[in-house]
Amino acid sequence: MTGEALRSRFPLPPGSTIGIVGGGQLGRMLALAAARLGFRVAVLAREAGSPAGEVSAVEIVGAYDDAEAVARLAAVSDVLTFEFENIPAAVLSAVVDQGVEIAPPARALAVSQDRVEEKSFLNAHGLPTTPFAVIDAAADIAPALERLGAPALLKTRREGYDGKGQIWVMDAGEADAAFAAIGARPAILEAKAPFVRELSVIAARTRAGRVAAYPLGENRHERGVLRATTAPASLSEALQAEGLRIAHTLLAALDYVGVIGVELFALADGRLLVNEFAPRVHNTGHWTLDGCEVDQFEQHIRAVAGWPLGPPHALARVEMTNLLGAEVEGWTALAAEPAARVWLYGKREVAPGRKMGHVNRLSPL
Amino acid sequence: MTGEALRSRFPLPPGSTIGIVGGGQLGRMLALAAARLGFRVAVLAREAGSPAGEVSAVEIVGAYDDAEAVARLAAVSDVLTFEFENIPAAVLSAVVDQGVEIAPPARALAVSQDRVEEKSFLNAHGLPTTPFAVIDAAADIAPALERLGAPALLKTRREGYDGKGQIWVMDAGEADAAFAAIGARPAILEAKAPFVRELSVIAARTRAGRVAAYPLGENRHERGVLRATTAPASLSEALQAEGLRIAHTLLAALDYVGVIGVELFALADGRLLVNEFAPRVHNTGHWTLDGCEVDQFEQHIRAVAGWPLGPPHALARVEMTNLLGAEVEGWTALAAEPAARVWLYGKREVAPGRKMGHVNRLSPL
Repeated sequence: MTGEALRSRFPLPPGSTIGIVGGGQLGRMLALAAARLGFRVAVLAREAGSPAGEVSAVEIVGAYDDAEAVARLAAVSDVLTFEFENIPAAVLSAVVDQGVEIAPPARALAVSQDRVEEKSFLNAHGLPTTPFAVIDAAADIAPALERLGAPALLKTRREGYDGKGQIWVMDAGEADAAFAAIGARPAILEAKAPFVRELSVIAARTRAGRVAAYPLGENRHERGVLRATTAPASLSEALQAEGLRIAHTLLAALDYVGVIGVELFALADGRLLVNEFAPRVHNTGHWTLDGCEVDQFEQHIRAVAGWPLGPPHALARVEMTNLLGAEVEGWTALAAEPAARVWLYGKREVAPGRKMGHVNRLSPL
Repeated sequence: MTGEALRSRFPLPPGSTIGIVGGGQLGRMLALAAARLGFRVAVLAREAGSPAGEVSAVEIVGAYDDAEAVARLAAVSDVLTFEFENIPAAVLSAVVDQGVEIAPPARALAVSQDRVEEKSFLNAHGLPTTPFAVIDAAADIAPALERLGAPALLKTRREGYDGKGQIWVMDAGEADAAFAAIGARPAILEAKAPFVRELSVIAARTRAGRVAAYPLGENRHERGVLRATTAPASLSEALQAEGLRIAHTLLAALDYVGVIGVELFALADGRLLVNEFAPRVHNTGHWTLDGCEVDQFEQHIRAVAGWPLGPPHALARVEMTNLLGAEVEGWTALAAEPAARVWLYGKREVAPGRKMGHVNRLSPL
C-alpha cells in the first residue's frame, strides 16, 4: 500500500481497532483510553489474561518477537502501536509490508533499541548526552575509562531496563568482571553524568508534525527503578523551555507519531543532558492520568489514530508514586486517602520490585 | 451463606471480579473504572461485542431476565451489580440464594421498578413527589384527572424510560385512547409538576452507611431524552442542601449500596419534588467523569466492592451534552475542541436518538 493510501485512513473513526503489541500495564492504560474514544482494542500478550488483554476486545497470545503472532494482530487492526520497544525490526517491517501502519515509526524503535545509536542520533541532532564509548570487548573498557573518567556506567547496547544489564565500573581493574557481569555482549560505557536532578518530558506528535508537550516532571529512582515523579516540576523557565526544545527537536528528527518519554539529567551548571528516550508512553508520565485534561495514554491514542492532540497543560500538581511488589498490599490505606487516586494493574502475581500499580496524590498548582 | 459471611468478603481485594448485568455504555464506563482499581469485570450482555463486553475479561451473552444466564454471571463474580434496573425480582433472589451479594440491593430495584411503589415509598419517607393516582383501567383516568387537574401524565407502572411508555392526557375524553396508547397496562397518572428547573443529584452509599453526594446538576430534556447537564448547577445554598437531604434520606431508607441517580423538579416556590430515582449510575452524572477526582463510575465500584468512597466535590464546571444518533458523526470536530472531553460508547450501529456518546466541556468553577 502506498504512503498516501495509508494516510487517507486517518483520522481513524470510532469503532476502528487499535492493535497494541504488549499486554502489560502500559497496554492496559492505553486500552482504557482507546475505549473512552470509542475504539476497539486488540492486544498481543505473552500470556492469556494479561493486564491489557482483560480490558480489550481481542487478546492474541504470543511472543513479541513472533512475526506470525504480530501479523495476526496486524490483520485485525487498523493501526498498530506498542507498549514495549524491544520488538525486532524484522517483525515490524513484515507488518509494514502487510499494509498496516505502525506508530511510533519503526525508525524510532530501531534508534532507541541500541544505546550507541540512540546517543549518536541525539548528538547528531544537537541534543547533548553524557560522553560515551563503544565497548565491543572487555579490552575496550580501560582506554574508554581513561577518556570518560571513573566511575563510568557499563550497559548492554540492547535491551535491559529498570537497572537490569548495567553495572558501574570503578576502575580499569574491574573491566573483565564488569563485561562478564553484563553477559559479555556489545556494550556502551557512559561517563557519570554529574546531574543534580532527574527530569523527564513526555510529549506527543501527530503525523502532520503538531507537537503537544506536557510540563516536565522530576523523577526519583531507587536501584534503577522509578520510585516517584513530581509534576509539574519546580523549574526555572529556562530549564522548562530547554526541556521542551529537546522534545520538539527529537520528535521532529524521528518524524515521530505518538507519545515519547525523554529522560533528562539536569546538571549543576543549568544544562540538560538527554539520558535516554522511550518510544512509547512512559512511567514518568503517569501523573498526567489525574493531572491533565488529556493524559498521555489518550494523547498517544489520539496521535496514533490521527486525531488532533488534546491540551497538555497541568490542572493540578501531582506526586506519582509507584507501587512496587508487596507495596500494593497497602491498597486499603490508599483507597481511604481522599486525595489519592489509585491505579492498579490487575497483575495476578506479586513479585519483588514488580510494578503493581501507582498512586497519584493531587494538590493545587 | 449468612449475611456476616457475605460482609466479611468486603472490601474486595484487587483481582476480584465485579459482575455487571448489562452490556451498554453504563456497563462500559463501570468496567473502565473497575479496571483502574485492578478489578476484573464480567458482564452479561444481550449480544456479543457489547460496549461493556469489549472492555471486560468475560462477556456472557444472554437476556437480563434469563435466570440461568444471570446465575452464570454470578458464578464467576465476587459481587454483582447492574446498569439496568428492569431485572426481574425472581432472577435477583435466585442470585442471592447462590450466595452472591447484589449491590444496589434487590429492594431498591423492586421499589424503582414500579412507579406507584416508588412514589409511595418516597412519600412515606417524607420525600415529596407530584400528586399521583393509580390507574388500573381507562375508567380510572377521569376521576383521577378531576383530582390531579389536567393535563396529567399517564405512564405505565413498570418499564418505559427516555419518554417511552408515557403520554400526556389533556382531558377526560382522551382517557381511552391514552390508556390504549401505553398498552392498556397498569399505570400511574401524575399531576403536571409546575417545575421551573430540572435538577438531579447523584450520590453513593457504602454498606456501613457512609454517603458521598455530588453537587446537583441541572438537566435539559428534549422529547423525554436527556440532552444536557450543567454541573454544579447554580443554586441557592438552601436548594443545594435540600437536594442533598433528599439523597441522604432516600439512600438510608433503601439501605442502599452503590450510586443512585435522583431526578428532581425545582418549583417556583423553592420546593423540590422527586421525579424518580434510578438505582444505578445515571446519565446526569456523566459530568463527574471529567469534573471530579472520583467519578460516579469509580464511586459505584468503590461502594459495591466495599472500598471507602472518594471525594465528590467538583473540580470544574462541566457542560455535559449527549451525542444522540447521527450527532456522533461530529466526532472530528469534537476531537479538535481543546476543552471538550469526548466519550464514545463503541456502539456499532447508529439509530435515531440512540445514546452514542457524550461530550464534557469544562470551564473553571
